[in-house]
Amino acid sequence: MNQVISSIPLAQTIVEACAYFGVHHVVISPGSRNAPLTLSFSNHPQIKTYAVVDERAAGFFALGIAQQTRKPVAVICTSGSALLNYYPAVSEAFYSDVPLMVISADRPKHLIDIGDGQTIRQEKAIDPHVTYSACLKEDVRNGDNTSVQKYNEIELAKAFQQCLKRQSPVHINVPFDEPLYQQTNHTSINLAIFKQLEINIPSAINKDLASAFIKDWNSSKSKLILVGTHLPNTISKEIIELWANDPSVLVLKETTSNLEHANFIDSIDGIVAPIEKRTDASSLFEKLQPGMLISFGGMIVSKKIKVFLRKFQPKQHYHINPQKAYATFYKKPIHLKTNANHFFKYVFSNLKQVDSDYFEFWNRVNKLQCKKIEQYVKEIPFSDFSVFYKILKTMPSREHLQLANSSSIRYANLMQLPQETEVFCNRGTSGIDGSTSTAIGAAIIQNKPTTLITGDLSFLYDSNGLWNNYIPSNFKIIVVNNSGGGIFRILPGEKHKNYYETYFETSHQLDASYLAKMFGFDYFTAGTKNELKNELKHFFKPQQKPKILEVFTPREVNDQVLLNYFKV
Amino acid sequence: MNQVISSIPLAQTIVEACAYFGVHHVVISPGSRNAPLTLSFSNHPQIKTYAVVDERAAGFFALGIAQQTRKPVAVICTSGSALLNYYPAVSEAFYSDVPLMVISADRPKHLIDIGDGQTIRQEKAIDPHVTYSACLKEDVRNGDNTSVQKYNEIELAKAFQQCLKRQSPVHINVPFDEPLYQQTNHTSINLAIFKQLEINIPSAINKDLASAFIKDWNSSKSKLILVGTHLPNTISKEIIELWANDPSVLVLKETTSNLEHANFIDSIDGIVAPIEKRTDASSLFEKLQPGMLISFGGMIVSKKIKVFLRKFQPKQHYHINPQKAYATFYKKPIHLKTNANHFFKYVFSNLKQVDSDYFEFWNRVNKLQCKKIEQYVKEIPFSDFSVFYKILKTMPSREHLQLANSSSIRYANLMQLPQETEVFCNRGTSGIDGSTSTAIGAAIIQNKPTTLITGDLSFLYDSNGLWNNYIPSNFKIIVVNNSGGGIFRILPGEKHKNYYETYFETSHQLDASYLAKMFGFDYFTAGTKNELKNELKHFFKPQQKPKILEVFTPREVNDQVLLNYFKV
Repeated sequence: MNQVISSIPLAQTIVEACAYFGVHHVVISPGSRNAPLTLSFSNHPQIKTYAVVDERAAGFFALGIAQQTRKPVAVICTSGSALLNYYPAVSEAFYSDVPLMVISADRPKHLIDIGDGQTIRQEKAIDPHVTYSACLKEDVRNGDNTSVQKYNEIELAKAFQQCLKRQSPVHINVPFDEPLYQQTNHTSINLAIFKQLEINIPSAINKDLASAFIKDWNSSKSKLILVGTHLPNTISKEIIELWANDPSVLVLKETTSNLEHANFIDSIDGIVAPIEKRTDASSLFEKLQPGMLISFGGMIVSKKIKVFLRKFQPKQHYHINPQKAYATFYKKPIHLKTNANHFFKYVFSNLKQVDSDYFEFWNRVNKLQCKKIEQYVKEIPFSDFSVFYKILKTMPSREHLQLANSSSIRYANLMQLPQETEVFCNRGTSGIDGSTSTAIGAAIIQNKPTTLITGDLSFLYDSNGLWNNYIPSNFKIIVVNNSGGGIFRILPGEKHKNYYETYFETSHQLDASYLAKMFGFDYFTAGTKNELKNELKHFFKPQQKPKILEVFTPREVNDQVLLNYFKV
Repeated sequence: MNQVISSIPLAQTIVEACAYFGVHHVVISPGSRNAPLTLSFSNHPQIKTYAVVDERAAGFFALGIAQQTRKPVAVICTSGSALLNYYPAVSEAFYSDVPLMVISADRPKHLIDIGDGQTIRQEKAIDPHVTYSACLKEDVRNGDNTSVQKYNEIELAKAFQQCLKRQSPVHINVPFDEPLYQQTNHTSINLAIFKQLEINIPSAINKDLASAFIKDWNSSKSKLILVGTHLPNTISKEIIELWANDPSVLVLKETTSNLEHANFIDSIDGIVAPIEKRTDASSLFEKLQPGMLISFGGMIVSKKIKVFLRKFQPKQHYHINPQKAYATFYKKPIHLKTNANHFFKYVFSNLKQVDSDYFEFWNRVNKLQCKKIEQYVKEIPFSDFSVFYKILKTMPSREHLQLANSSSIRYANLMQLPQETEVFCNRGTSGIDGSTSTAIGAAIIQNKPTTLITGDLSFLYDSNGLWNNYIPSNFKIIVVNNSGGGIFRILPGEKHKNYYETYFETSHQLDASYLAKMFGFDYFTAGTKNELKNELKHFFKPQQKPKILEVFTPREVNDQVLLNYFKV
């Protein structure tokens, strides 16, 4: 090793631990207290470092990288409130199972809460939303550092173990005393402790549960497979075909499920909403009520399916996930602690087709509904709905698509996507706080063209996401600007009232043009059907420079078009 | 009462509690879960409401209002990660004693951690930096709500008690179940519990401590009064004169101390820095070492005075503050739990002048140093230092001045300010995360013209601060743009190295022009001494519209000019 590194053993230990446990990307926000880490990381041959000033954006940017690599990505900040700006991204990582390593530099413990500058209570400051909080100890200078070194190595090992095993955010707080800038070329660190560490990713399948599952599967005439947010290309073709060709199996999936088959139903709300308004709703819901529910993946977007399944509960509910099994439908599911592909491979040869009209009935309902929608779309005026429909119709296959919260993901969920579109959205907390930063983080890992579709509020909220020197030239943003929080217009309330526009919709006259210029994006607009059509002709073609297409929709029309959709 | 309010008793209780305890300003971020609060607050006749979308900016905006009014200001957000975006402002409020009421709407408890959307662990999520976390209970519907109502009232009372007594942030988490939008015209709330509540602001003076103080004061020949961040116009003239005319009293104050007298020394570093480099430093520091140290106010900016007093400790140290007495100089001070004006009024008639050359000696040193600096400034090239000097020389008296962290406050602290300038800066955590939002919050309370001086990184970091519909027309920003974190150039390290520029200085080519246009500011620039002189001729004149003056300084000159200042 001959690169320049910090002479502080604690800094060396952290950097070597990160390298050892497979951290390849480190996002650094500027500061003085974190100088020992900045020095060592930025000169490390196996680690790519990024400088992002705003820690909130940095956190989501790192989340976007880890969302794609599924390996720990570290964020590094200085002491003080910097750490707290990571918190929104940390909570998103916590609920969407993304391995984010938060490493905050701190002042030595004796300087906390004595009125020293840029000093807060960093220890456990973000504890509710990480799976491990390590508070390391300052190196002993001019004395025996052995026990401190050992303590720190064990804490680091525990933090990495949680981060890797549970694909979860962890927090490592690191006190550094001055001087902070001393350098060396030689590391003195021996990582023996890490090498002893075994990180067991739980994947052993419980045989009794598997047997019960097989028995239930083979006897149930109405099996509903419900897929939440899920990584693309992780379920093998033969398993997909098994689900698709069993007449007793209905697969309901969402945009973010990243699962494709002609027999899978895309728009959950397209099934549920039409039932709600019928006079025979109750008996139809009973017909949809599954004997057996199999769920896997992360969060479900559709509120309607949650309401339905909470009321019309399945006899059995199995949830397949290496870590978590939430009682989303109010009853604790049977937890199969592995991933869906692994589990179905294991039980595959024992599963039998069961004769049933469960799939066929609902597939027919769905097809009919799809036809009605196609007709409906032809009749609607230019609006959020027609814009999303047109964009997704025009988008080429194999695009990497990032969706912001909440309108964007909700509209996309009502529509069919082009083949092999990979879709991601921050559905852990469903916040509007970091969609742009996340999309950019994902885009730098993807070799594919990446498009972010976002509303105006989400886009403006995370405008600092654009303050980023690493935006790839094939990155594109579509801002659907309805002059405020259009989603609130759908809610009940007196929309004509002044307080409604100000405090719910938060209507505004801003657009993305200045931000586009400021951050070096090409910028295009559309405000009519024809303009949109013309812009979309070129939009998805290869480009030299990142670009933004801003589509202006009429805020007072959008809500009615959507509400009428549910009446089709 | 005939305004529209939420029909939910819990919402009514919170709004009436806020009104009862003197909350006059409420900053609302849009959302659905907080609809009951938004409805009731935005229609309340005694409460002014503001809509700010980005919760981080909303938090600092509210902090700016409360910084000026010293009364509780509430921020209201929806469920999910929204709350976490307040955290940076909350930590600043915690360390700078600002009464911020954080009110987060939440889903009912049974929907937490079961995979429901926009739901996190809000209860105690920001606990380390609030003095009270109340987690209210959902109203019982169609049943007896008496005990829940009582519980909620008591929790609210406790939260307000802490907020008012300790001038501190508190967190109130509020679960609401659907439906959220039902309205009424009649409140059913009786606030009996609040009316019983006595909020004792501690101000009784401990007589024994006061006697000891008088004895020490009257016998000490070297009394140092050190003033941290402090509100303007809170120390009476006769007390100021007593300090100023006692030859044994040396008053060291900072820009943010808001205290003026010809005999008070402005630039602490101007006293300490020249000593450091002298061969007789040790004996000079012994001469400066106070027999008695009296400190009051909040955080001290100067690092040099902290280093000095930690090494050359006073015999006695009294700290005057209603709440806190940090061991900033490593020894716990004697805590006088009141404010400085109150205390000195109490002991006033018993204090005697003590013959000494303590003041005279250091006043001479200071005057000499001031002359040297005046000469130095004439010789330096156009740079951050010269720009700050020129701005503060040109600024009219009685301006309300807000300073960003860290360069801006540090430069201002080295210079003399115009008479009766009121100065504020977020020195609780010294973050760069909310200076613009805070300044705008303060500006709407001030009737005076308000100027924010900020560096480029702080300005860009809080660019969403400008996304605010309430910016008064007499608000002005001066952005000193040195193309990155200029403050890091002052630190040791190899500045020519690529990693230094990227990860410490984070150099960039951005400017404020696009943000100015986007958010409706007039915009002016200066890049030379003459341009700055010309711009400043008009800058402080009355204006129709908020404006930004951006001054571009040479990043590779600034650090040397500052370092040489300390060698004068």
